[in-house]
Amino acid sequence: MNFGSTPLDDLRLPSRVTIYEVGPRDGLQNESTVLPVTIKAEFVARLVDAGHTVVEATSFVHPKWVPQMADAEELWRMIDLTPGVRYPVLVPNSRGLRRALDLGVRDVAVFGSVTETFSRRNLNRTVDESLEMFAPVVADAREGGLGVRGYLSMCFGDPWEGEVPVSRVLEVATRMWRLGCTELSLGDTIGVATPGRVSAVLDALITSGIPVGSIAVHFHDTYGQALANTLTALHKGVTTIDASAGGLGGCPYAGSATGNLATEDLLWHLHGLGIETGIDLRKMVDTSVWLAHHLGRSSPSRTVTALAG
Amino acid sequence: MNFGSTPLDDLRLPSRVTIYEVGPRDGLQNESTVLPVTIKAEFVARLVDAGHTVVEATSFVHPKWVPQMADAEELWRMIDLTPGVRYPVLVPNSRGLRRALDLGVRDVAVFGSVTETFSRRNLNRTVDESLEMFAPVVADAREGGLGVRGYLSMCFGDPWEGEVPVSRVLEVATRMWRLGCTELSLGDTIGVATPGRVSAVLDALITSGIPVGSIAVHFHDTYGQALANTLTALHKGVTTIDASAGGLGGCPYAGSATGNLATEDLLWHLHGLGIETGIDLRKMVDTSVWLAHHLGRSSPSRTVTALAG
Repeated sequence: MNFGSTPLDDLRLPSRVTIYEVGPRDGLQNESTVLPVTIKAEFVARLVDAGHTVVEATSFVHPKWVPQMADAEELWRMIDLTPGVRYPVLVPNSRGLRRALDLGVRDVAVFGSVTETFSRRNLNRTVDESLEMFAPVVADAREGGLGVRGYLSMCFGDPWEGEVPVSRVLEVATRMWRLGCTELSLGDTIGVATPGRVSAVLDALITSGIPVGSIAVHFHDTYGQALANTLTALHKGVTTIDASAGGLGGCPYAGSATGNLATEDLLWHLHGLGIETGIDLRKMVDTSVWLAHHLGRSSPSRTVTALAG
Repeated sequence: MNFGSTPLDDLRLPSRVTIYEVGPRDGLQNESTVLPVTIKAEFVARLVDAGHTVVEATSFVHPKWVPQMADAEELWRMIDLTPGVRYPVLVPNSRGLRRALDLGVRDVAVFGSVTETFSRRNLNRTVDESLEMFAPVVADAREGGLGVRGYLSMCFGDPWEGEVPVSRVLEVATRMWRLGCTELSLGDTIGVATPGRVSAVLDALITSGIPVGSIAVHFHDTYGQALANTLTALHKGVTTIDASAGGLGGCPYAGSATGNLATEDLLWHLHGLGIETGIDLRKMVDTSVWLAHHLGRSSPSRTVTALAG
C-alpha cells in the first residue's frame, strides 16, 4: 500500500540522508545472545544489499571486555567488501588500531564520553585520560588516510549525573574534533533527550565552527523520543543519522529492552518526508525478522512489528 | 534522576497543552480482555488523580457492536465526577445521545471517517450518510449546552485506499465543523503519517478558518512516528493532543500491537520541552503498570517500560 511522501515545507530539511548502520557492532554488542560469525557476515551482507553505504562492522576490543566481538578478525575476513561502502570498525586504543590497519580497515571509530561518571565506569578512565589515549589513535589513523569517527556518549543526560550542561558537551566535542576526528557522533546513550536539548547542543557545536556535515546524531528510543529528536537534527542540517537494524541492542544503563533507534522506523520517517536514503525498507524488515529469529526474540522496532505480519 | 527541561527556542511551541485521555474508551475498546466495571472506574479515578482534566470515559454504543462498552451506564454512575474535569462519552447516534443526556453527560463525541472505505466498513454508511446521521446528534447536543467533539479517522492514510488527499480531509472536516462540532480530532488511525503530511493537513484546515484551538490530533504509534508528528502539530499551534494511558488499544487495521500514542511517552516529550500538562508522570506509569497487570500483558509504551523496572 502506498501512502506517498510529503516534504515538510516550512522547515528546511536535507533532501538526502546517510544512515550510519550500527547494528552489527553497537547492536549485537548489547544483545545477550552471541551469534555465530557466519550469521554476522550474512547480516553485514544483507545490510549492504538493502542499500546501506556505511555499516559499522565490529569492534577490535579485547574479548575479555566484549566477548560478543571476539570474532572480529574472522568476521572482517569473511566480509565481501563492496566498493563505495564504508565498513568502520571500533578501536579502543592504539593496539586495536594496529589490528585494524593490519587487516586493511579504512574507517575506524573511537568511543568516548562527555561525562566523568560514564567515562570512569565504561572506560575506567577520566575524560582527560581517555582523550590522551585517543590522541595517538586518531593521529595515526589520519596519517594512514583513514576516516575517524569520535563517539561522544551521554551528550543529553547521564544516568548518574542527570542533566549534562551544553557547555560540557561543547568542551569535549571541541577537544575530540581538534584531535583530528573526521566525524563526531553525539550519543543520547540513555534516550532521555527531547528536541529542545537536541537543538541547544547542535546550535552550540555548529556555532563553534564544527561543520554540521561532520556531525552525526545517535539517538536511543528508550523513552520513545528518537524520531522527534531526529526531526530536530534534520532541521539543523544534520545529514548523518545513526540507527540499528530492527532496533538491535538494548540499553544496559536503563531498565529497558529499547536501545538504539531502529533503522526501519527511521526509514519510514525519512521516506515519508521525501528524504532519500538509498535503502530498501522491505529488505530491512526481512533482515530484522530473520535476525530476530536467530536471536530468539522479536524486534522492538514499531515498523518491523507492523510490517512483519 | 532529573534531566531538566529545555524549550525549543527556534520553533514557537505552546507553553501548555491539554492531553485528551482516551484510554478508558478508545484504549479499552480495542483490548481483547474485558475488564470488570470496578477496575474501569478505578482507572478513570486514577487518571484524574494523576492530573488529567479530560478523560473520555466510555461509549454509548450498542453492546452488539462493542461488547467491551456494555457496562457504559453502570460505569458512568460509578464515576465520582470531579469539578473542572470533563468526561466525554462517545455517542454513535441520536439514541446514544439520549442515553447520555439522561445521565447528565456534559461532553460527547461522534466518530466519523474521511475515507469512504473505512466509513462503510466501520459505520456501515457512506461519508454522506454518516454526516446526515451526525447532524441531529450535534445539533441536539449543542442545544443542550454540551461540548461536541468530532472524530475524523483515516486523515493521513487509509489501509484500503492508501494515500488520502489533503483536500478530502479538508472537505469532511469543514462539513463536520459546520454541523456545529466544538472540537475536531484528526486521527492517524493506522499510524502511517509523517511530519510533512501532518503539516499540510493542519495548514489546510487552519487556513480555511477552523480555529487551531478547536483542532486536536490523534496519532497512533504503529510505525513509531507519533511524537515526531506531535512536535509538528505543536509547532502549528495545536494545544490538544490525544493519548492513551500506557498506549492502551491495539491497531485492528494493521498487524501490530501498537496503537494509540502512549500518554507517558507524550508526557516525557512535553515536560522535556518545558511544556506544562498538569499531569504527574510517575502516577501515570504506576497506573499503566497496574492496568497491564489486569490486562495480562505489558504496556507497549517505551517510557512505561523504562520507568517501571
